[in-house]
Amino acid sequence: KRGIRSATPEEIQAGLTADVYFVGTQQILHELGLSDEVVTAEIFANHAGVLAGVEEALTMLAPLNVTVDALDEGSMVSAKQVVMRITGQYGVFGLYETALLGILAASSGWATAAHEIVEAAKPVPVVSFGARHVHPAVASVMDRAAMVGGAQGASSILGARQAGEIPSGTMPHALLLMAGDTVKAAQAYDALMPPNAPRVVLVDTFKDEAEEALRVAEALGSKLAAIRLDTPRERGGVTPELVREVRARLSQKGYGHVGIFVSGGLTPARVGPLVEAGVTGFGIGSYIAAASPLDMTMDLKEINGKPVAKRGRIPGLTPSPSLKRRQTGATGD
Amino acid sequence: KRGIRSATPEEIQAGLTADVYFVGTQQILHELGLSDEVVTAEIFANHAGVLAGVEEALTMLAPLNVTVDALDEGSMVSAKQVVMRITGQYGVFGLYETALLGILAASSGWATAAHEIVEAAKPVPVVSFGARHVHPAVASVMDRAAMVGGAQGASSILGARQAGEIPSGTMPHALLLMAGDTVKAAQAYDALMPPNAPRVVLVDTFKDEAEEALRVAEALGSKLAAIRLDTPRERGGVTPELVREVRARLSQKGYGHVGIFVSGGLTPARVGPLVEAGVTGFGIGSYIAAASPLDMTMDLKEINGKPVAKRGRIPGLTPSPSLKRRQTGATGD
Amino acid sequence: KRGIRSATPEEIQAGLTADVYFVGTQQILHELGLSDEVVTAEIFANHAGVLAGVEEALTMLAPLNVTVDALDEGSMVSAKQVVMRITGQYGVFGLYETALLGILAASSGWATAAHEIVEAAKPVPVVSFGARHVHPAVASVMDRAAMVGGAQGASSILGARQAGEIPSGTMPHALLLMAGDTVKAAQAYDALMPPNAPRVVLVDTFKDEAEEALRVAEALGSKLAAIRLDTPRERGGVTPELVREVRARLSQKGYGHVGIFVSGGLTPARVGPLVEAGVTGFGIGSYIAAASPLDMTMDLKEINGKPVAKRGRIPGLTPSPSLKRRQTGATGD
Amino acid sequence: KRGIRSATPEEIQAGLTADVYFVGTQQILHELGLSDEVVTAEIFANHAGVLAGVEEALTMLAPLNVTVDALDEGSMVSAKQVVMRITGQYGVFGLYETALLGILAASSGWATAAHEIVEAAKPVPVVSFGARHVHPAVASVMDRAAMVGGAQGASSILGARQAGEIPSGTMPHALLLMAGDTVKAAQAYDALMPPNAPRVVLVDTFKDEAEEALRVAEALGSKLAAIRLDTPRERGGVTPELVREVRARLSQKGYGHVGIFVSGGLTPARVGPLVEAGVTGFGIGSYIAAASPLDMTMDLKEINGKPVAKRGRIPGLTPSPSLKRRQTGATGD
Amino acid sequence: KRGIRSATPEEIQAGLTADVYFVGTQQILHELGLSDEVVTAEIFANHAGVLAGVEEALTMLAPLNVTVDALDEGSMVSAKQVVMRITGQYGVFGLYETALLGILAASSGWATAAHEIVEAAKPVPVVSFGARHVHPAVASVMDRAAMVGGAQGASSILGARQAGEIPSGTMPHALLLMAGDTVKAAQAYDALMPPNAPRVVLVDTFKDEAEEALRVAEALGSKLAAIRLDTPRERGGVTPELVREVRARLSQKGYGHVGIFVSGGLTPARVGPLVEAGVTGFGIGSYIAAASPLDMTMDLKEINGKPVAKRGRIPGLTPSPSLKRRQTGATGD
Amino acid sequence: KRGIRSATPEEIQAGLTADVYFVGTQQILHELGLSDEVVTAEIFANHAGVLAGVEEALTMLAPLNVTVDALDEGSMVSAKQVVMRITGQYGVFGLYETALLGILAASSGWATAAHEIVEAAKPVPVVSFGARHVHPAVASVMDRAAMVGGAQGASSILGARQAGEIPSGTMPHALLLMAGDTVKAAQAYDALMPPNAPRVVLVDTFKDEAEEALRVAEALGSKLAAIRLDTPRERGGVTPELVREVRARLSQKGYGHVGIFVSGGLTPARVGPLVEAGVTGFGIGSYIAAASPLDMTMDLKEINGKPVAKRGRIPGLTPSPSLKRRQTGATGD
Ligand SMILES: [Zn+2]
Ligand SMILES: [Zn+2]
Ligand SMILES: [Zn+2]
Ligand SMILES: [Zn+2]
Ligand SMILES: [Zn+2]
Ligand SMILES: [Zn+2]
Ligand SMILES: [Zn+2]
Ligand SMILES: [Zn+2]
Ligand SMILES: [Zn+2]
Ligand SMILES: [Zn+2]
Ligand SMILES: [Zn+2]
Ligand SMILES: [Zn+2]
Repeated sequence: KRGIRSATPEEIQAGLTADVYFVGTQQILHELGLSDEVVTAEIFANHAGVLAGVEEALTMLAPLNVTVDALDEGSMVSAKQVVMRITGQYGVFGLYETALLGILAASSGWATAAHEIVEAAKPVPVVSFGARHVHPAVASVMDRAAMVGGAQGASSILGARQAGEIPSGTMPHALLLMAGDTVKAAQAYDALMPPNAPRVVLVDTFKDEAEEALRVAEALGSKLAAIRLDTPRERGGVTPELVREVRARLSQKGYGHVGIFVSGGLTPARVGPLVEAGVTGFGIGSYIAAASPLDMTMDLKEINGKPVAKRGRIPGLTPSPSLKRRQTGATGD
Repeated sequence: KRGIRSATPEEIQAGLTADVYFVGTQQILHELGLSDEVVTAEIFANHAGVLAGVEEALTMLAPLNVTVDALDEGSMVSAKQVVMRITGQYGVFGLYETALLGILAASSGWATAAHEIVEAAKPVPVVSFGARHVHPAVASVMDRAAMVGGAQGASSILGARQAGEIPSGTMPHALLLMAGDTVKAAQAYDALMPPNAPRVVLVDTFKDEAEEALRVAEALGSKLAAIRLDTPRERGGVTPELVREVRARLSQKGYGHVGIFVSGGLTPARVGPLVEAGVTGFGIGSYIAAASPLDMTMDLKEINGKPVAKRGRIPGLTPSPSLKRRQTGATGD
Repeated sequence: KRGIRSATPEEIQAGLTADVYFVGTQQILHELGLSDEVVTAEIFANHAGVLAGVEEALTMLAPLNVTVDALDEGSMVSAKQVVMRITGQYGVFGLYETALLGILAASSGWATAAHEIVEAAKPVPVVSFGARHVHPAVASVMDRAAMVGGAQGASSILGARQAGEIPSGTMPHALLLMAGDTVKAAQAYDALMPPNAPRVVLVDTFKDEAEEALRVAEALGSKLAAIRLDTPRERGGVTPELVREVRARLSQKGYGHVGIFVSGGLTPARVGPLVEAGVTGFGIGSYIAAASPLDMTMDLKEINGKPVAKRGRIPGLTPSPSLKRRQTGATGD
Repeated sequence: KRGIRSATPEEIQAGLTADVYFVGTQQILHELGLSDEVVTAEIFANHAGVLAGVEEALTMLAPLNVTVDALDEGSMVSAKQVVMRITGQYGVFGLYETALLGILAASSGWATAAHEIVEAAKPVPVVSFGARHVHPAVASVMDRAAMVGGAQGASSILGARQAGEIPSGTMPHALLLMAGDTVKAAQAYDALMPPNAPRVVLVDTFKDEAEEALRVAEALGSKLAAIRLDTPRERGGVTPELVREVRARLSQKGYGHVGIFVSGGLTPARVGPLVEAGVTGFGIGSYIAAASPLDMTMDLKEINGKPVAKRGRIPGLTPSPSLKRRQTGATGD
Repeated sequence: KRGIRSATPEEIQAGLTADVYFVGTQQILHELGLSDEVVTAEIFANHAGVLAGVEEALTMLAPLNVTVDALDEGSMVSAKQVVMRITGQYGVFGLYETALLGILAASSGWATAAHEIVEAAKPVPVVSFGARHVHPAVASVMDRAAMVGGAQGASSILGARQAGEIPSGTMPHALLLMAGDTVKAAQAYDALMPPNAPRVVLVDTFKDEAEEALRVAEALGSKLAAIRLDTPRERGGVTPELVREVRARLSQKGYGHVGIFVSGGLTPARVGPLVEAGVTGFGIGSYIAAASPLDMTMDLKEINGKPVAKRGRIPGLTPSPSLKRRQTGATGD
Repeated sequence: KRGIRSATPEEIQAGLTADVYFVGTQQILHELGLSDEVVTAEIFANHAGVLAGVEEALTMLAPLNVTVDALDEGSMVSAKQVVMRITGQYGVFGLYETALLGILAASSGWATAAHEIVEAAKPVPVVSFGARHVHPAVASVMDRAAMVGGAQGASSILGARQAGEIPSGTMPHALLLMAGDTVKAAQAYDALMPPNAPRVVLVDTFKDEAEEALRVAEALGSKLAAIRLDTPRERGGVTPELVREVRARLSQKGYGHVGIFVSGGLTPARVGPLVEAGVTGFGIGSYIAAASPLDMTMDLKEINGKPVAKRGRIPGLTPSPSLKRRQTGATGD
C-alpha cells in the first residue's frame, strides 16, 4: 500500500492525472449532440517568462487526432501571450487540459527563474543544484527546464543525462566529516576520479575557508580545478569580501589557476557582486527549485470557426504570428 | 527520444535522481578504509510548517539496512526541528539524501500552504484544485500532501483516489461554451450524473452571476447542491459583496438550500471575509500548488557514536523526543 | 421656520454671509478718524491651481466705489500669486472679504480638480457629474467652474444652461428597474428623445455589461450613440479589461460606431488606462465635487500709498504684471 | 448676464438643480404605462459619519405626495446605513434625487469633520470659522452643519443667526494695520462694543505675541476676555510652547483671567496638545470647510411591494429600525 | 609649533576655551552700570538622558564667588529638566558658559549611550572599548562617563585608573600576527601575566573561531578565563549562532568554565540575542564613543530676584526639587 | 581629587591614554624573541570623508624611530583608503595605536561634517559655533578640524587663535536680558568695540525679529554690519520666509547694507533655502560638534617584508600612490 506516490508517464498519458471534472464532459457533449463540433483552444501564460515544457506537451498530444501550433521551447513570452493552440474535437483532447497546463506551468516557472539568475551571473556559468528541493519524480524535469533557461549543467544524474551533459558535482559534507580532514578527503577523491574530471573541493567543513583553500591547493597543486565555498549562514554565508580575500590569498601563493565555485542561498541580487569579486562558477538550488509555476490558462476561442469566449475574455483567435505548426489532425484548419 | 521526462518510482528507488556527487562517495570511503563506520544523520526543516512525505520517504528507505526514527506524517514542526534520523553505514543510504530531502521538502511545502488556508477557512471545507499548476507526475503527491494539511478533497483523479476520497469536481468552462447556455449544460449534466453525486454548476461563463444562479436554480430546483463562482479577474473576481448578494437573491426566491462554492486566486487573507459572506466550499489552486518547498537539510551528527558536525552546526544528536522508531537496521543503536 | 437654508444672491450682496467681525470695523475706523484712508488689499492663492469665480466676484464688487484689478477667469496661478487687487476706502469693501474669498476659493478648487482630470483624459471629453455631491444651491456654480477647468459639459440643468451648453445625461438606474429590462427602457427612451439628441444607454443594471451592450446595440442599431458603463464597486467597477472586451464584442458584431461612456469613482490615475482601452467619454462626480477649496488670503498691503503688512508678510504691493484693470473707483490709483 | 451664479431656494424647489437625466424619465414611464407604480427608494451613506441636512431635505419633500422615513438630524451613521426612505410614485419624487443627495452629502460631510475636531478639543469649545473657504450661498448651511456636529458657534452672520446663536468674532488684521497699533485698536473696539460682548483681541499683527498680549492686558485690564493667537505659518504658527509661554507670562503679571483663543490651520491632531497647553477656545476654518462630502446613494428597493435592486445590491428594504416616520403620503405603506 | 592641539586643564580653567563673545560682556555691563546685579542662570538638558560631568563642572566653578545647585552625577534627566543653577554676578561666571555646557553635554552624551547598552546587556557586564574613536585628551573623560552610565570597566589606562578600576584588556591582533599562531601567543601571554589577572584570548585572527577556541582551551586549560570573539564583518561578524556553537563545542570538550567575551560594532539591539546565546562580557566601542552630545542650554531666569526670560522661554526659576546645594557664594539666595 | 579629567599633551605623549592591552605586548614579543622584527602597519578610514588630525598625529610620532607615510591634511578619502603607513619595530610604536586612531577619527569626523555644510552653504561663509557641545579640552581641536573642512572661522578663543584667525562672535542673550533692551545693549557694545570690528547684533531676545532689526538699524545706522537671527524653536526657528521678510523690511527702510547672520540647529538640508532667502553668514554648532568620528582601523600588513593579514583582510601593502614620506626611521624601507 505504502509507496512512491508519483505518477508514471503511462498513467499521465492515460489521463489519470486529470481534474475529475473533465471526465464526464465527453458523455454530456454526446448527450447534447455536440460530439462532432470542431473547436480551437488557446493556452496563454498569465505572466511574462521563459517558456519550457513544450516538447513534453507535444509528446502527450502526439497520439491524438488534433492540429497543434506552438511556440518554440525556450521562447521569451509576455503576459497573456498565446503559447499553444489546439484544434480538434473537444472530446479528443479536453481530458488533457490539466496535464498540459501543469507541464507547461511547472517547467516554464523553473526556466524563468534559471534565466533570471543566468542573466545576473553572466558570463560566469550556472549549474542547477535544486534536486534536493523537489520531488525526485520531477528533479530531472526541473534540471532540463533550468538548462532551457540557460543553465550550463545540473547536479542530478538523470537531469544531466537527459540533457546530454556530464553531471556537475563536487563532494558532500558527509564525506569530509567521515574522512575527518579536508585534505585527506581531497587526496582520496583525486586518486579515484577519472583524469579529465575537474577536481572541485569543498572547503568550509572544518576550518576557515581561506586557510583550508590554501591547504588543499598545496596538496593537489596544478590538479586542483576549483575550491567550493558553501559557507553556512551561521558563519555569515559567502560574501564578496570572502571571495576577494580567498582569491588574493590563493593568487599570492601562486595558485592563480584555482577557480572559486560558490553555492548556498544565491539569488539574482547576490550573484552580481560575487561575479565582480572573482567567482568562476555558481551552484543554484532553491532560487530555481522554489520558483512559482508560470501559471497557464486554456480558453476555448472558436467553435466550428465562430469566435467565442467566456465572460472576461475577447472572443476569437488571438493574433499569434510566432506560433508554428507542430502537428496536423484530420480536422485542423 | 521525445517523451515525458519525469522519473518513475523504479528510477527513483534505483538512485537515478540523486545528486551526482553522492555517486563516488562510497568508493572513496572504501579507499579510506571507512566503509564500515556507522554514522547517524539528522534531517531538519529550515522553517516551521506541516511535515508531509514521511510515508513516501520510509518507502524509499525500507529496502536498506538502516535504523530510522521519524516524526508522524502531518506533525507541526518548528524551524530547525529534527524530522528524521537515520543510522547505518553511510555508503548504504548516502545516495538517497537528494531524493529524501526532495520528497519531504516538496510535500511539506504543499501541506503547510494547505494548512494555512484550511485554518483561515474554518469551518468551511477546502478542496485542492492545484493539479493544473504542477507537473502531472506530482499532481497526486501534491493532492495527498494538501489532504495531510487538512484539505477535505482534491480535484485530480489519482490524487483523490490515493487518498481514498471521491474526487471533487464541477464542470469546465469549455463544456458550457460548447453547450452555449449554462442551463442547457446544467440539465444535461444533471441527467447523466449518478443520483447521489452533488450537482455543482459553474455560473460565471455567460451572464452576470446573480442572474445565472437564479436561472440554474429554477431549472434544477432541489437537485442543485451548489453554484460555483469563479469570476475572472477581468470582472472583479469573487468578492464578499458578490457572495452576499447571490446568497440573498437565491434565498429570497426560495433557494436557501443551494450552496456557494468559490474558486480562483484565493489566499488565506481572502477566504475569511468570504466565509463570513456565506461561502460553503472553496477550491484552492495556486496558493497550494505554488508553495515554496519547506527546505530540509541532512547533517551527519555522529560517527561511531562520537558527536561531529560541520562548522556552523552543533555536534552530536539533537534532543528530539517526538521521533518514533520506524525501522531497525543491523547497526542501529 | 424649516426651510432651504442657503443664502440668496440678494442676501450675499447685502453682506449677510460675512464673518461677523467685519461688522463693527467701519464704526471703529470712524471712531479712530480713519474712515477716509485709502487702502490697497491683495488676494492671493495659497496653492497653485486654476483660478475661477473671478466673474462672480466682480459682480459682487460692481456696485462699490473701488478700483479692481484681477487675473482672467481660468488663469493658471502659482502658489502665493496675487489674483485680485482692490483699492478704495476700507469701510466700503471690507465687509465683502469673506464672500469674495469664498467665491474664489470654492470655484478655483473645483476648476483645479476638473483641470487635472481633463488633462489626464485628453483627448477624451469629460462631463461634470458632481451635482449629487454638493448642496443644490452651488451645483450650478460647481458645474460652471468645472467647465472653466476644461470640462465639456455638465449634468445639472442649471449648470449646463448657465454655461450655454445642452446638458449631458443618460438615464437613471431607477427608470431601468421600473421598466424591468434595459432594452425595453432603451426603446421607450429612443422613441421620446428629439432626433438629434445622442442615445446613451446605461447597461449595468440587470445583466453582465457585455451581454447587455450587445442586446441594446441590436435593438437600437445605428441610432445608438454609446453605451454607459457605471459598474458598481461590488461587481469590480469599470476596468480597462472590461472596456476592452465590450469594445471587442461590439465591434465583432458590427457595432463599431457605438461609443463607450464611463462613470463611477474616476480619478486622474484611473482615466489614463481607460482611455487607452477605448473609452469615448467620462462622467466625473466626486473627484471634482469633493475637491478642497483652493484657499485664498486677503492682505492689506498699502495705506495711503505707504507699504504695510502684518508680521510674516512683505509690506507693499506684490509685482503682478498679469493683473488687468476691471473696474475704476473714485479713489483708485 | 454676469451675476451671482448660485441657485435660489425657489429654483432648487422647482427642480432646476437636478441632473438632466431625471427630466425625461416621467414621460418615458408614462409611455411604458408605469406612471402609477408605487416604489420605495432608500438613501444610504457610503461612509460612516454624522448625518446632517435632514431638515432641509424634508423641507424639499414637504409639498410632495410621498411617505418619508428618516433618521434624526445629527445621528451617527455607519457605512451603508439607510438614512432616509421615500415611498410614492417615482414620477413625483425622482426629479429631486440630485438635490436630496447633495443636501445630505454636503451637510453630513461638514458635520462629520466638525464632530471629529470637537471630540479632539473637548472640553474646549470650537467655533466654525470656515465661511471664507466656501461659496457664500452655502456658508450658512456649513455653519449650521458644523453646529449639528458639535460646534458651539459660527463666525458668519447668517449661519449663527439661523442657529439662534450670537455670532462669534474678534477683529480683522486689516483693522489693526489701519490703526497702526494693537492697543489703540483694542481700546477703540472696547469703547464701541456692547458691555456684555466679550473682548477678544488679535495679538499677532505687529509684535511678538507674548509682548503684545501683555500690552493689551495692561490696557484693557479686567475687561479683556481673551487674546487671539493666529500666528502665521511664516512665524511658526501657533504651537503648544507658544501657548504655554503666553499663558505663563500673562499669569505672572496678574492676568490669569485672560483666555487664549487660537485659530489657523487647526486639525484634530493639533488641537489636543494645544488644549493641554492652556487654550480656552478654537476657531476652525478649513478643516470643516474643506471636508469631503459624505457621499450618499439612492437605490430603488421595492416596486409595488416587490423587492428589486440593481446588480450589486441586495433587493428589498434594508432593516432600519432607527428610521422615523416624518411625512405620510397617499400611497405610503 | 606643530603639536598636540588640545587644551590643558589650566587653559580651560583660565577661560581660553570660551566662546569669544563672552569676553567683552563684562566691560559692557560695567559701561551700563550693571556689574553688581545678581543673576540666576539655569542649565537644562534638551533631551532625556543620563547626566554626567557634574563633578568636573563643579571643579571649574569652585574658585568663583557663586552659589551652585546641581543634580547628582548619574541622575536620569528628562527633556528640559534643570541640571544646574548658578547665582552670582554675571561677570563672575558668564565666561565659563561654553566650557560648562561642553563638559556636561559631552559626558552626558557618553553616559546616556553607555546606559542604553548596559540596560540591554543586563546582567552581562559591559566594558568601554571606545578610546580609539575619540581624541586622546578626552578618552579618560569618556571612559569615566561610560562608568557613570553603568559600564563596569574601561580599556584605557588613564580612564580606568581615574575610576579606580583595573583596566580591562586582552591582546591586540598585531601581537598574534607577529607570533604567527594564537596558541603560541596565548602561552607567552599566560607566562607573563600576574597570576590573578584573567586570561582572555582573542581567537579570530587566523582560523575559524570554534577551532581556535578549542586549541587555546586545550593549551591553557583551567587557566583560561575566556576567549574573545571579535570576528570581522568580512567573516559575518559575531552572531548568536556563532556564540551558541562555540559555547557547545567548548562545553562538550569539558571547557564549560571558559567565558565568551564579544566585541565589534555592538548596539543595544544586537546585545540581547547575544546574551541569550551565552556571552559573558561585552566590549563596546563606537556605540558609546560616537554618541551625540546631550545638548545643554544655559538661560538667565532671574535678575535681582525678578523673573526674566528671553522670548520662547518661561520667565523665572523652574521648580526643580532634586537640585542640591553644592557651593555657596556671597550673593547666593 | 576632584578635577578636570582630561589628559594633558604630556600624558598623551607618554602613552597614558592607550588601551591597556598594548601595555604588555612589548614584553611578550621579547619573550618570543620577536623584538627586532620590522613590521609595517596601515591605518585606513572605514568610511569616506575629509581627513584631519594628520599634523597632530605626526607630532606624536616625531620622537619615535619609525618611517611614516601619510596623506595630506584635508585630503578627501574614500572608504577603506589608507591614510597613514608606519614601518618600524612594533614595540616602538604599538602603544600609540589608540591615540593615533582617536586623533585621526575625531578630527576627520568634525572636518567631514564641516565640509558637508560648507558645500551646502556656498558661497556664504560658515563659522564653527560648536564649542559648547564638546569637552573644552577638545574645543580648539574641533574648531581647527572645522577649518580644515572649510569653515572660515570659529567662535572659541583658543580654536580661532591656533588657526591664526580672529575669533568670530556676537553677543550673548544674557547680556541683552541684563540690559533689558536690545538697542541699549547694542549701543553700549558699539561704544566699546574697536572701530574695525564688525557690529553684529542678536535680535531675537525680546521682540519680533523684524521689529527689533529695524530698531537696531535705526540706532546704529551705517555702523551696523549685520543682525543675527537665532530664533528659538518655540518661535518656529529661523525660516527662509523670516529671512526674506526681514531682508525686505530692512531694505525698504534703506538698510540694504545690513547683513543677516543665522545660527541655531542648522543642517546641510536647511542652509540651502536660507542662502537663497538672503542669509550672509552662518554659525554652525551641533551639526559639526556632534559628528560621528570617522572611524579608523590599523592593520599589520607586513612582517620583515612578507605580506600578512588577519582573517578578513587581504595580506600585504595596499597600493596607495597618494601617500607622502613624512618621516624616515632607521628601519624604514
Ligand atoms: Zn558547506
Ligand atoms: Zn498568476
Ligand atoms: Zn470562470
Ligand atoms: Zn529556507
Ligand atoms: Zn450603475
Ligand atoms: Zn492651504
Ligand atoms: Zn494673524
Ligand atoms: Zn465615497
Ligand atoms: Zn578581530
Ligand atoms: Zn538637541
Ligand atoms: Zn536666540
Ligand atoms: Zn563605521
